[in-house]
Amino acid sequence: MIKVSVMYPSRSDARFDHDYYRTKHLPLIKSKMGAALRYYTIDKGLADRDGRRPGAFVAMCHLLCDSVGEYQSSFGPHAKEINGDIRNFTDVTPIVQISEVVVENSAGRGTESLHRIPNDRDLASHTPDQVVR
Amino acid sequence: MIKVSVMYPSRSDARFDHDYYRTKHLPLIKSKMGAALRYYTIDKGLADRDGRRPGAFVAMCHLLCDSVGEYQSSFGPHAKEINGDIRNFTDVTPIVQISEVVVENSAGRGTESLHRIPNDRDLASHTPDQVVR
Repeated sequence: MIKVSVMYPSRSDARFDHDYYRTKHLPLIKSKMGAALRYYTIDKGLADRDGRRPGAFVAMCHLLCDSVGEYQSSFGPHAKEINGDIRNFTDVTPIVQISEVVVENSAGRGTESLHRIPNDRDLASHTPDQVVR
Repeated sequence: MIKVSVMYPSRSDARFDHDYYRTKHLPLIKSKMGAALRYYTIDKGLADRDGRRPGAFVAMCHLLCDSVGEYQSSFGPHAKEINGDIRNFTDVTPIVQISEVVVENSAGRGTESLHRIPNDRDLASHTPDQVVR
């Protein structure tokens, strides 16, 4: 299983509409990606380790898919529309990170991912225009 | 519910032992935090959005607790020991972010967090020496 983390760095003058992000943007991604998007999570930044708000990132979402290929083939065709929606809730450019899920949930449900580990072939086909911009 | 994200920025000459991180460091955190740590997740960086490896972060973990207070009271007393273990797997200093979990898992299990939203009082008591260093 892989996780695509979309992280919005915080900035003192940043605009970010958390309600829109939760009620419109993520549901848009879900509707476009379909079953390839196993599930997603949303985080709202509270503080860094010294208590400064909202921390390094004002918001993050994590998109869980079975493989990089599944992500690419489901997100890619809708990337332009999805990324075009970003301006509706923020003026921050996100950092995008693709990770292998080593432990999905230590308490049980998929404790250690038994899914296929992404290989070189997956990454070789990972082209820029298919991911979040 | 809150999430403490511990993110290790990538660096070309960085040292990071993913096996130690998974088999020793996170289990150490779990053993020290006890039931206050609802569960954790581990990510291993694969690529950024342009396919460059391993992406902005070489590894991340996310610690899920019911509240900032639960995290502080369970992690704080063991912070020195836990943080002292970091040198055993990496020479990278992590970024720590505390977030409110807005959506824990869109597919069901705790779809929208019904837990109490952290308030000013929680954050006011969030002192630097109680969190990851």
